Amino acid sequence: MDFKEHIAIVEDWPKEGIKFKDITPLMDNGKAFKAAVDEIVEYAKSRDIDLVVGPEARGFIVGCPVSYALEIGFAPVRKEGKLPRETIKMDYGLEYGKDVLTIHKDAIKPGQRVLIIDDLLATGGTIDATIKLVEELGGVVAGCAFLIELTYLNGREKLEGHDVLTLMQY
Amino acid sequence: MDFKEHIAIVEDWPKEGIKFKDITPLMDNGKAFKAAVDEIVEYAKSRDIDLVVGPEARGFIVGCPVSYALEIGFAPVRKEGKLPRETIKMDYGLEYGKDVLTIHKDAIKPGQRVLIIDDLLATGGTIDATIKLVEELGGVVAGCAFLIELTYLNGREKLEGHDVLTLMQY
Repeated sequence: MDFKEHIAIVEDWPKEGIKFKDITPLMDNGKAFKAAVDEIVEYAKSRDIDLVVGPEARGFIVGCPVSYALEIGFAPVRKEGKLPRETIKMDYGLEYGKDVLTIHKDAIKPGQRVLIIDDLLATGGTIDATIKLVEELGGVVAGCAFLIELTYLNGREKLEGHDVLTLMQY
Repeated sequence: MDFKEHIAIVEDWPKEGIKFKDITPLMDNGKAFKAAVDEIVEYAKSRDIDLVVGPEARGFIVGCPVSYALEIGFAPVRKEGKLPRETIKMDYGLEYGKDVLTIHKDAIKPGQRVLIIDDLLATGGTIDATIKLVEELGGVVAGCAFLIELTYLNGREKLEGHDVLTLMQY
């Protein structure tokens, strides 16, 4: 399936000069959404995954169906102040700013093989911080999967040493 | 399955006097998460659903796996400024404040039977606004499903005339 047919390119959003890749038309199409998730599910099987971790909010959109399909847990990574119990936190640089990501301290059991899922690999800042959170809790990052990779931002370099799947490249 | 075994009750969060119901332990347990989603999937089948709509961010966690399992689309409802293309918007009152919800104008085809999914039915403010967004786009709200219902907040009254499923009541 050509997933790119279901991506809307939005000019100058969220700021001038950015051509934002909008995944909502893909999600709105049940067959395309399922096919995309299933490619990640197959990848997860090949990487022997115990747990899916995804940053809010679009990481939930892709990651939770993968977790459901494999009958394994999903641990959310959220911005500071959003998770109600004891967390660890990590600063990160975004494509358009700076922020803090957190994860519940009991979200990962040491040694669990974790698949990190998000919609988009841009500069890799969010995922780099997510990897650090997973590793601080003793998890093993066994793979990273994204619907879209912006190759010109070189996010893959930040993920060197990790196995990476992306379904679409721009 | 007793889903309540997998809910953490967090005292005084996000503010004093609130006993927050945290669904992250349920999500962290693959079997419990799948069983909970599957109950909503069965409900969706009985309501002949064409599309799932869920408010960010926890609505994505429950709604996207339901959409995946049924091979139907998922349309996100997000806070203002988060969706990149043309939206319609609705004010709403939260349990702890006020905000604006938006949905893409092309997210729903007129006549589509929509299941609205969120983690929690509290006062019903978020869901009431979501129903209005769906109906403004010509969708038919064929059901509303939640993991948790806070019965003492009477959210069901706001949803009168709509079919409602909740898996846990407090």
